[in-house]
Amino acid sequence: MPELRKDPIIGRWVIISTERSKRPMIIELPTKPPDDGICPFCPGSEGLTPPEIMAFRDQGSPANGPGWRVRVVPNKFPALRVEGELDKTGEGLYDKMNGVGAHEVIIETPRHDRQLADLEPHQIAEVLQAYVARMQDLKRDTRLKYLLVFKNQGVRAGASLEHSHSQIIATPIVPKAINEEMTGARQYFEYKERCVFCDIVKQELDDRRRLVSENGSFISIAPFAPRFPFETWIMPKRHRASFEDTPQADLALLAAILKDTLLRTSKAVNNPPYNFVIHTAPCDKATAEHYHWHIEIMPRITRVAGFERGTGFYINPTPPEESARFMKELQL
Amino acid sequence: MPELRKDPIIGRWVIISTERSKRPMIIELPTKPPDDGICPFCPGSEGLTPPEIMAFRDQGSPANGPGWRVRVVPNKFPALRVEGELDKTGEGLYDKMNGVGAHEVIIETPRHDRQLADLEPHQIAEVLQAYVARMQDLKRDTRLKYLLVFKNQGVRAGASLEHSHSQIIATPIVPKAINEEMTGARQYFEYKERCVFCDIVKQELDDRRRLVSENGSFISIAPFAPRFPFETWIMPKRHRASFEDTPQADLALLAAILKDTLLRTSKAVNNPPYNFVIHTAPCDKATAEHYHWHIEIMPRITRVAGFERGTGFYINPTPPEESARFMKELQL
Repeated sequence: MPELRKDPIIGRWVIISTERSKRPMIIELPTKPPDDGICPFCPGSEGLTPPEIMAFRDQGSPANGPGWRVRVVPNKFPALRVEGELDKTGEGLYDKMNGVGAHEVIIETPRHDRQLADLEPHQIAEVLQAYVARMQDLKRDTRLKYLLVFKNQGVRAGASLEHSHSQIIATPIVPKAINEEMTGARQYFEYKERCVFCDIVKQELDDRRRLVSENGSFISIAPFAPRFPFETWIMPKRHRASFEDTPQADLALLAAILKDTLLRTSKAVNNPPYNFVIHTAPCDKATAEHYHWHIEIMPRITRVAGFERGTGFYINPTPPEESARFMKELQL
Repeated sequence: MPELRKDPIIGRWVIISTERSKRPMIIELPTKPPDDGICPFCPGSEGLTPPEIMAFRDQGSPANGPGWRVRVVPNKFPALRVEGELDKTGEGLYDKMNGVGAHEVIIETPRHDRQLADLEPHQIAEVLQAYVARMQDLKRDTRLKYLLVFKNQGVRAGASLEHSHSQIIATPIVPKAINEEMTGARQYFEYKERCVFCDIVKQELDDRRRLVSENGSFISIAPFAPRFPFETWIMPKRHRASFEDTPQADLALLAAILKDTLLRTSKAVNNPPYNFVIHTAPCDKATAEHYHWHIEIMPRITRVAGFERGTGFYINPTPPEESARFMKELQL
């Protein structure tokens, strides 16, 4: 059973996932494609994954066979497990709990040769719809405090399988970065009585130097203080705390701006590996006045060195005004 | 001039260092060795670095020539610059300041073919003494709030030159990770009236399962909630907030335990790239009752994926009790 442990100084929770490695010497996570080269995420290989949790399928196609457009399965090597009661204990001055949670994989397309950015907007909208459906379902489990949706594109970004997919990890704690955002945004709200993210949207729409693209419901920006070159954030124009409350009509607009931003990133820096993470409110703060969901897209271009790794203090050689202008001017 | 910019939500400062990259398309930091293959850190190449700030030299050898054992020079591609007044300004809801600071390189040995762990303890002690000397000098500049000493060993850990070296960056702000430690440690102190780090030292010495090595003044442990497999921390046994206040006699003991820990890391996981960062109190909190300096050593074994990168929430496949036992049992 994996274990969650808390750093006693800064309160950062870590998953100690013993099942992902049998001996302390094993250094790569054992999630590589099988040796025979068969991709477990391709149609026809459905038996190589655990049974599907949900899928968007062509009419009449049976579960766990081909005919799906988007397919959600449990992670074969889960970081957290759904079984059991949540058990919090101490060990001297330390705190820990058992690793109750969920870990699912969203296979974004049956096509092995397509990245998310290559899909048609209506196909990307179905991927987003799968995120929403899974989040709404997982939220009913009151042991879970946070639903984290993220994507690793490319081996250097941590993807263990080439076939395009994203992941959901549901955790019994709120991750550190989200706690920090909640705290910072609440302090801003207490002082200004406004959502800091709404103020950012307004300033970026007025200023336009960091605006990458825009549609009726969303903006895509290079943030003012980006950690990474060509980092972008997608934000809803209107205040909304939780991603999973996005209306169906807006998912199409979100798919469009996500595709546009990913394509511009890809063209600007030669199809880089990237990560994206959906930052949404914790399960019990779904309608917070001070929090505003957004997607952070982080290309892996520069190497993160000791300086950044040890301190959370990043050096970024590319001003966001330059990366935004460059991305905006690209012909897609 | 580089610029420091603050994320308006979580207050994280970022260095936007335009001088390290001329065009937004350039994706690697331009700190590679020159094409002719001459190492600027080797004896005889002293003219290829900016003039030295200090050096430990054999008697009679002139500055900026061979004969040094440890040599400190300004970074040729500094992330921050020493010139000018500190100028803090706003831009709508955003905050920024100019990039005043210092960025120095400590060349740890004249030998191109030696890593830090290969040096004799008395040579490592001289490297540590150079850190102390530079920190004590930089502290006199009241514009500087923090002195960050770190090392990147190996290209995958961000080292741009092979020749063994470490770096000091002096910043006009306190890095986020240190602020978090100061806050967490202060809260613990307010509640318990004890230093949380002193309590960790005591518990680890009693428990011994995570102890890697120990001498009269220091312990080396696998921390209870490590982010990375084979992560270790070196901590002074007695309370001391600031690294630069380490007595001369203790530097020899620190050199010994640092060498021992680095060698064990190297043997345990096949000479991995690693980063270490000295966590010390901010300049104006040099004698804090609640803070306790320590060194965090982070081997680069697993890939940091989107999950970790976006959330500060790490998955570690190796329990620290296992890595500590394995490291402790190694024959050096």
